[in-house]
Amino acid sequence: MSRSVSPEEIHSSLMEMGEKCKLAAYRLAGMTSAQKNECLRKMADAIEAAAADIKRENQKDLKAGKEKGLSAAMLDRLKLDDARIKSMADGLREVTALDDPVGKHLSSVVRPNGIKIDKVSVPLGVIGIIFESRPNVTVDSAGLCLKAGNAVLLRGGSEAINSNIILAHCLNRGGVESGMPDGAVQLIPWTDREAINVMLKMDQYIDLIIPRGGEGLIRTVVENSTIPVIKHYKGVCHVYVDAEADMDMAENIIINGKCQRPGVCNAVETLLVNENVAEEFIPRIVAALTEKGVEICGDSTVCGLAPCAVPATEDDWYTEYLGLKISVRTVKDVCEAVYHINKYGSHHSDCIVSSNKESVGIFLNGVDSSTVYHNVSTRFTDGGEFGMGAEIGISTDKLHARGPMGLPELTTYKYIVTGSGQVRP
Amino acid sequence: MSRSVSPEEIHSSLMEMGEKCKLAAYRLAGMTSAQKNECLRKMADAIEAAAADIKRENQKDLKAGKEKGLSAAMLDRLKLDDARIKSMADGLREVTALDDPVGKHLSSVVRPNGIKIDKVSVPLGVIGIIFESRPNVTVDSAGLCLKAGNAVLLRGGSEAINSNIILAHCLNRGGVESGMPDGAVQLIPWTDREAINVMLKMDQYIDLIIPRGGEGLIRTVVENSTIPVIKHYKGVCHVYVDAEADMDMAENIIINGKCQRPGVCNAVETLLVNENVAEEFIPRIVAALTEKGVEICGDSTVCGLAPCAVPATEDDWYTEYLGLKISVRTVKDVCEAVYHINKYGSHHSDCIVSSNKESVGIFLNGVDSSTVYHNVSTRFTDGGEFGMGAEIGISTDKLHARGPMGLPELTTYKYIVTGSGQVRP
Repeated sequence: MSRSVSPEEIHSSLMEMGEKCKLAAYRLAGMTSAQKNECLRKMADAIEAAAADIKRENQKDLKAGKEKGLSAAMLDRLKLDDARIKSMADGLREVTALDDPVGKHLSSVVRPNGIKIDKVSVPLGVIGIIFESRPNVTVDSAGLCLKAGNAVLLRGGSEAINSNIILAHCLNRGGVESGMPDGAVQLIPWTDREAINVMLKMDQYIDLIIPRGGEGLIRTVVENSTIPVIKHYKGVCHVYVDAEADMDMAENIIINGKCQRPGVCNAVETLLVNENVAEEFIPRIVAALTEKGVEICGDSTVCGLAPCAVPATEDDWYTEYLGLKISVRTVKDVCEAVYHINKYGSHHSDCIVSSNKESVGIFLNGVDSSTVYHNVSTRFTDGGEFGMGAEIGISTDKLHARGPMGLPELTTYKYIVTGSGQVRP
Repeated sequence: MSRSVSPEEIHSSLMEMGEKCKLAAYRLAGMTSAQKNECLRKMADAIEAAAADIKRENQKDLKAGKEKGLSAAMLDRLKLDDARIKSMADGLREVTALDDPVGKHLSSVVRPNGIKIDKVSVPLGVIGIIFESRPNVTVDSAGLCLKAGNAVLLRGGSEAINSNIILAHCLNRGGVESGMPDGAVQLIPWTDREAINVMLKMDQYIDLIIPRGGEGLIRTVVENSTIPVIKHYKGVCHVYVDAEADMDMAENIIINGKCQRPGVCNAVETLLVNENVAEEFIPRIVAALTEKGVEICGDSTVCGLAPCAVPATEDDWYTEYLGLKISVRTVKDVCEAVYHINKYGSHHSDCIVSSNKESVGIFLNGVDSSTVYHNVSTRFTDGGEFGMGAEIGISTDKLHARGPMGLPELTTYKYIVTGSGQVRP
């Protein structure tokens, strides 16, 4: 993929891809659930049938990655073996079982003049996915977009380009063989920045951009896109332990939130403790966290109560550690906790542990996050855990989709107005 | 308002305004419908009580506008007299009667592990409105935003700046007197471009930008904003007359769409006629349109059938005339009509006149517009006509809101998850 192409060539090729995607999307919008499911099944078969080729192409990426000095964790994420190939194919088959979100009658009203106004769910059209490293995103996101009747234009990172190309090829072959319009799943073969710059201005063809990756990538997308973007930058999730809280429950929820899988966006990064229970709770939770290997930084009260804690800086309160570290602060009441979370948090997932109804109400109403929890671990912010069946991502935005995004969030609606010749007086 | 301020001063003042707006929004989110309605009533009273001051400030704008050479139509839009002041105040009172969109339980599910997930509507937060000329936008949009629990940061055009400032002042005085958090309604007093540039990057404070004005203003907003934008650029609305159509009905709908109020976004700009009825229908509709003073441009068939028509250029099909002109084209079938509308249209409002069920189905499904009509004038795309009670604008976007936007479109949702200590296994 290192053949040299001019920016003009990239521009005109992307425009062609965009137009083809749009036309495919119009045809997809008219397909039945059965037709779309048949495409998904054939895509899954095509991926499994090409396992040997996929592993060969993936080896190229792994070799290049090693030469580039990617970390063992990065190389592991990149790797496709038989089990992972089967898992991608099975993922597509599972999507066939999900409820088709298209064609739902959302509301219906007959106006006094006799016109009937139906609000009906329809596909968004063309969805642009910009992602890094993991090649399974190619397959997972194409499957979900297709089930919701959307065409998809994929732009993956350079580390996985050979794997992404062959996976997109399999998806296309399987899909088109079973009636999917050609162009409904396309992967941009150029991994340089120019391709993203062009893509982000193609608002005549692309209806939504979903970036999946690090905060840097997502900020670039937001700053340059003229197309609507749904995203989350990061997950700085909080647990607030109220004065009236079950301390065993609080400890469980914090340990689960911090330690069960520290590298994910719904893991806990900051613990807020009501000052009335600080003396009782902080030594205890610090001991439990330390035992799990968690480093602790805290405010002066916390450092006074737990000698192993180091002083937190202002930056710590904004930080998503994505690892075994936590920042801990005492607050005077639930209002100060809410203020802290809204100021320093990322509007993702935040929890109160409390048995005081008034505190709980203030917290759940006041915290401006996509998901607020009462006596439940923040780790449940996930499409599967929410019963959505699958998710294409999590949004900390407020427009269109907030929290885990399933298939319905990949649709929009249109108004269909029928009558018998009514005109406006 | 011509005192000179440095870009740094504008920047720091706007940041302060933004933070104040955000804090006010958090307080607004906790207000009851009764409290918000009381604010709206007091705002209305404050505007009526200040009628003399408002007219005095408005005179300054009118005088400056005359000196700048604004057209009579522009000056008329700018003008505030007693009737218009009363109408703005009454508009606020009408908003009190609308259903509060906040706090609706959108869905509720109990998962097998016992956690309960409620999806509840909440305010968006801070809405930024960028608008031109008409000062009533200050009042109308503040009222709607407030009722939906949102703070609003307004940025009006230079022509109406004195009127906008006093109106915002009245809204604030009335609101704050009756319990509205200070800062919930703010108007940016600088009308230079720098203020817009800063505002469009304030994504830490502003949750949504709604631009209202010409296509140029809206494109600038979309290209520069890091905040989500809901908009419509223009309304290039179509009527397609099918082979099997009631010709009287078609004529009525076209004349209504083109002539009843040609300057609005849901007026008809392009007529598509099935070639099988072109000979019958085109001379007839051209005569009816010409009688109303409508200029006609058309394809070669149309020009052959109607000598008064001038040849349409490629540009004509994209054009929103906003006046007494229409472009007319013949198409071979409904599919070609759909293709034309999706290619040249603005995804606003498009109509088929037909009694053929199959054609109607193809059209209503295939046309990628916010509102599609069967045997009804496109002029009905309007919040009031849709029964929404009021609208803050019309969206041709697909994300979050499509078509007329009422109060529910000024809210988002959050997930509230409650349990008894559940952690993720």
